[in-house]
Amino acid sequence: METLFHPKSVAVVGTNKVKGTVPHDILDNILKTDFEGVVYPVSPREKSIKGIKAYKYVVDVPDDIDLAILVFPSSVCHMALEQCGQKGIKAAIIISAGYKEVGEAGLAREKQLIEIARKYNMSFIGPNCLGVINTDSRINLNASFAREMPETGNIGFLSQSGALCTAVLDYAIAKHIGFSKFISFGNKADISEIDLLYYLMEDEATKVILMYLEEVSDGRALMQAARDVIEKSGKPVLVIKSGRTDEGASAAASHTGSLTGKDEICDAAFEQAGIIRCNNLEEMFNKAIAFAYQPPPVAEKVAIITNAGGPGVLTTDAAISNGLRLARFSEETTKILKSALPATANINNPVDVIGDARADRYTAAIQAAFEDDDVDGVFVILTPQSMTDIDTIATEVTKIAEGQTKPIYASFMGARDVASGVNILQKHKIPHYTLPESMCISFRTVHHFHSSLKQKRAGVPTMDRIQAELAKGLMDKALSNGREYIPEVETIEILKAYGLPAPQGKLATSVEEAVEVAEQIGYPVVMKVVSDQIIHKSEVKGVELSIKSAEDVKAAYQRIHENATARMPEATIKGIYVIKMISGSEEIILGIKRDPSFGPVLMFGLGGIFVEVFKDVSFGVAPLTLEEAHDMIKKTRAYKILKGIRGLAPRDIDAIAEALLRLGQLALDYPQIEELDINPMFVLDEGQGSVIGDARMILNKTL
Amino acid sequence: METLFHPKSVAVVGTNKVKGTVPHDILDNILKTDFEGVVYPVSPREKSIKGIKAYKYVVDVPDDIDLAILVFPSSVCHMALEQCGQKGIKAAIIISAGYKEVGEAGLAREKQLIEIARKYNMSFIGPNCLGVINTDSRINLNASFAREMPETGNIGFLSQSGALCTAVLDYAIAKHIGFSKFISFGNKADISEIDLLYYLMEDEATKVILMYLEEVSDGRALMQAARDVIEKSGKPVLVIKSGRTDEGASAAASHTGSLTGKDEICDAAFEQAGIIRCNNLEEMFNKAIAFAYQPPPVAEKVAIITNAGGPGVLTTDAAISNGLRLARFSEETTKILKSALPATANINNPVDVIGDARADRYTAAIQAAFEDDDVDGVFVILTPQSMTDIDTIATEVTKIAEGQTKPIYASFMGARDVASGVNILQKHKIPHYTLPESMCISFRTVHHFHSSLKQKRAGVPTMDRIQAELAKGLMDKALSNGREYIPEVETIEILKAYGLPAPQGKLATSVEEAVEVAEQIGYPVVMKVVSDQIIHKSEVKGVELSIKSAEDVKAAYQRIHENATARMPEATIKGIYVIKMISGSEEIILGIKRDPSFGPVLMFGLGGIFVEVFKDVSFGVAPLTLEEAHDMIKKTRAYKILKGIRGLAPRDIDAIAEALLRLGQLALDYPQIEELDINPMFVLDEGQGSVIGDARMILNKTL
Repeated sequence: METLFHPKSVAVVGTNKVKGTVPHDILDNILKTDFEGVVYPVSPREKSIKGIKAYKYVVDVPDDIDLAILVFPSSVCHMALEQCGQKGIKAAIIISAGYKEVGEAGLAREKQLIEIARKYNMSFIGPNCLGVINTDSRINLNASFAREMPETGNIGFLSQSGALCTAVLDYAIAKHIGFSKFISFGNKADISEIDLLYYLMEDEATKVILMYLEEVSDGRALMQAARDVIEKSGKPVLVIKSGRTDEGASAAASHTGSLTGKDEICDAAFEQAGIIRCNNLEEMFNKAIAFAYQPPPVAEKVAIITNAGGPGVLTTDAAISNGLRLARFSEETTKILKSALPATANINNPVDVIGDARADRYTAAIQAAFEDDDVDGVFVILTPQSMTDIDTIATEVTKIAEGQTKPIYASFMGARDVASGVNILQKHKIPHYTLPESMCISFRTVHHFHSSLKQKRAGVPTMDRIQAELAKGLMDKALSNGREYIPEVETIEILKAYGLPAPQGKLATSVEEAVEVAEQIGYPVVMKVVSDQIIHKSEVKGVELSIKSAEDVKAAYQRIHENATARMPEATIKGIYVIKMISGSEEIILGIKRDPSFGPVLMFGLGGIFVEVFKDVSFGVAPLTLEEAHDMIKKTRAYKILKGIRGLAPRDIDAIAEALLRLGQLALDYPQIEELDINPMFVLDEGQGSVIGDARMILNKTL
Repeated sequence: METLFHPKSVAVVGTNKVKGTVPHDILDNILKTDFEGVVYPVSPREKSIKGIKAYKYVVDVPDDIDLAILVFPSSVCHMALEQCGQKGIKAAIIISAGYKEVGEAGLAREKQLIEIARKYNMSFIGPNCLGVINTDSRINLNASFAREMPETGNIGFLSQSGALCTAVLDYAIAKHIGFSKFISFGNKADISEIDLLYYLMEDEATKVILMYLEEVSDGRALMQAARDVIEKSGKPVLVIKSGRTDEGASAAASHTGSLTGKDEICDAAFEQAGIIRCNNLEEMFNKAIAFAYQPPPVAEKVAIITNAGGPGVLTTDAAISNGLRLARFSEETTKILKSALPATANINNPVDVIGDARADRYTAAIQAAFEDDDVDGVFVILTPQSMTDIDTIATEVTKIAEGQTKPIYASFMGARDVASGVNILQKHKIPHYTLPESMCISFRTVHHFHSSLKQKRAGVPTMDRIQAELAKGLMDKALSNGREYIPEVETIEILKAYGLPAPQGKLATSVEEAVEVAEQIGYPVVMKVVSDQIIHKSEVKGVELSIKSAEDVKAAYQRIHENATARMPEATIKGIYVIKMISGSEEIILGIKRDPSFGPVLMFGLGGIFVEVFKDVSFGVAPLTLEEAHDMIKKTRAYKILKGIRGLAPRDIDAIAEALLRLGQLALDYPQIEELDINPMFVLDEGQGSVIGDARMILNKTL
């Protein structure tokens, strides 16, 4: 990997003399930026390009080559790669398009590239990418067809889309945002975003990692990589994952052939891994510059300094709405502000230095705010009024920010007259935001990231009381015949073997047995029809509740049989499930789903209308730590209900968390479980545990 | 009002020669923009300013003056205004600050201004404002101390904050956003935002009205004005109302002395009046240019044309998330796209013209999309790739947009290289957005506004079965003694007189009477303690449910008396309220609240934990039309439950709507009702009506 970013010698394979074409521009870009190594143009037709000797084939180059950049059409590119292998080149960037993204034939060509690379033990980035930029002044490599080299900085950028890179570079250059590495990885046929994440983790020049993804091919590996990066290097990982909506996902699919899972699951998985998900480029860079330019805030209390009341109010609204708080100034600070500002100024937070303020008032107010112990960060707001010396204020802000341990962000409102001031701020690494909202959200994101850094992720706990042998036998049985749908009794048996709280009760195959079971477990009981064919038991009137005597058990047994037979004559009835009825509980839903990107995922929600009407569910990628299980519960609004509102007793939340951990283990042990639902699970009062009310499972027989 | 914006002669009262000060800059601004009338400088110290003869006092000016602009300090400004009155001037703009916004003394000075204006029958804008701009080329009036005159356009802008105006102008000038009128109205001591709304309604040059407000002093008048503007002129009204959070509101209060109500109520009131509420300047202008520049879309189906897949996916996500849909191209369109674009292009929506596309491909694709019947609007997305002829594409977009009846919006992604292209778009009134989200939200807003324009607001229905005399008697009784808190039985009597569904039952003052009432209404019954002192009946164990026999009534009567007396010995028990028990219903909450800005407001929510946990409530300003009452119900997520989910019977939503209308009438008739809660109201199945479960009222005795 090091060779890719720090090559001593580079061959541009397939370059030409036609300006404005990719093969030419790549060579041109490498030469323009004063690359510190040697470049060898390889071109079948030209003797020299831009005055540099060109070679017909890469094997003709007399010297060793570290990195090959391939720009041949996809029809011949594999032959060039083969020659690179023969030449002993170990690293390549394949710019050429016409692979997986164009369908079957392209996919075949892409596989060919992978085979060649394997044969010669080569690694490559691409195909179908913009290339790679390393701004390190000791190397100066612009191996891309971007219009221009960005400034040097500490942001590492990875993108699956090459075209998006052009917009990013154009945006970044205008705003003086610098990069350490800028990598367009295209179809990631060999080197993936996971490899690159690990590379940037080690890369000293990179402090913040950004990524644009259209497809999460291996969600679990991505989560692990992000966790490693964050834990080991403390670098934040910000990701745009497009295809949020079904329509977006299908547009992505037709664009790169990507397959994508449910977006809510991606959201949950990213959060679990500590990845900061962004919706668009602007949001990503707004957050990135806050991370890259300024120290992190210790807490969330800000001081707002403004020269106009209205924007001060708008910024206060934005701060509070986004979870920040206004600092309360000490008497000392108030005294300083009083003496430094005119009588009409507002010396409380938000501080209004008044419309005719010049740089001196801003400087005094900012300095006072920085020195106040209650202030964790300073927001500078400016409107371009007639007396406002915008550039001087900007310059003073950059000076005052130097060496501070608290962050300072700015919002100069307007566009034309404030432009040069904004430019001064951006050049000197003061995060500037057009909107107060973006400023506040970025501040909160940095604060949140750095506070969670301090909490180390606990390990996934090992579950006791798992009867692995028993479970295996039951699962083998469930898998043995042709069924995909596994009904209640069998699913509950497996859950029980995994230590989940099965209801008291048994399958009864005769009236007598039913009475016997009921007498044994005690009344009231619930009775339900058991049949492989009957999925919706209520619809055939196959469930009766609150049965309170042997007499009633007998009658119910009869009725359920009759109802089920009448409504589904073709169903084979295995018997009636007689279980103890639970009352005074809260009903929840727990489940396992399998996501194409993230694998086994757990689901939690409050039962009944809550899931349907309020979509109040949370997801977590299995396995969970105990804390993550609790986080899943806390994330829902239903948590308030479980904690006990209006003087009601709190429910056994620990029991729910444990059930989630056990389900996670089950999901990992048996990849054949495509879907499992416990609906409802009855949660009793704190310390009383929970009981499964009903459950079912769908198996994937192809595994 | 006309004189304010089209004066033939203007006196700048209190001007001077000191550049960079407000008194000087205002005169300078008027002269710089080639004002079509005559300007008279009035300055106690100067003989001439900028070569123009100056007068010591305004009364010294030998000619008639239409408009006076006052820039004297607040300590002497009232004397100048007095002279303006003597001179017979009927319109003034008072720029000077130092009034209501600085506290008591300022407020007194402000009242003085109002008195003088009344005496001479003058109207004025301000004080504490930036001034007024009229870009009409027949007048060219820049009576403000803004740094520069904006371009002429069809947007009218009103602002309570003068400082914010400077940011707005700076923003607008950079983006070629033009204004018809630009008005900073400051403390609105005389002319208010309401007056200005009506003025802009009539103003032919204005097509879109924007407003920044910190304080809604008369919410009902504002709603009426907005409704009139929208209904009579079809002009959209976009408003930023700051002070959303408590902290923001208190910052606003310390800034302008504004008082503000609950923000959710403001939200609801604006929506009810058709006002489009915006969170920040960028959002407001993003929407404003969509209204001002392009025809409204007929429906919500868009075609996306892009030269890069990634941004196409992001835009698709943004469109779907914001309620738009992707158009499905006809066979004809598909054929045209197939022939015009290369084989690697994506000819489905979103159309990808591919990274090397030049203007011709964009033009062909846009033209084809415009001509497709399923397309209601076109989004053009561009990334600055090496082959992209950005300016040519921008120019082609402006040409193709001419004369179209469908709107076209653009997003050129990046910042530096795309700047000149964006500038071309902005100059030619193609709405340009940095973010796809803003583009989609603006499109939806315009579409939504124009579809609701077609639906005329029905009148507020007159309610039958209101026993006005009876209600007045009961209310007089409730008001007659010192109580503020009116308990259940009395509140229900009043509600009943207003035709609301009181429960069957009566106040019983003896065991015998209780049994009699129960026997008469039929079992089961509910029994509740009645006492002025007992607000929380359950807390004293003063409520019993499901009482099924005379025996049980007797026992319950005894128990409730004992419980209440034991727990609250000082309470005077008036008796026991015996009512019919309702089962099989949905519990809702209805209420009246009084908002400082909007007056009587109605509240609706589903009962129990829904209000507490999900904050699932809606508000409406009384009186409501029938449609508005239904909208209030539909706005909550609880609506799904009332409509009947999972095969459950739908509830009587019409009964809820009717109850809201009746409560609205009651709230209007009796301004003394500070707060009224019906909690719960039992809603029965469709057509079965509803029944009040409990109610209470708080009166404002100061009215």
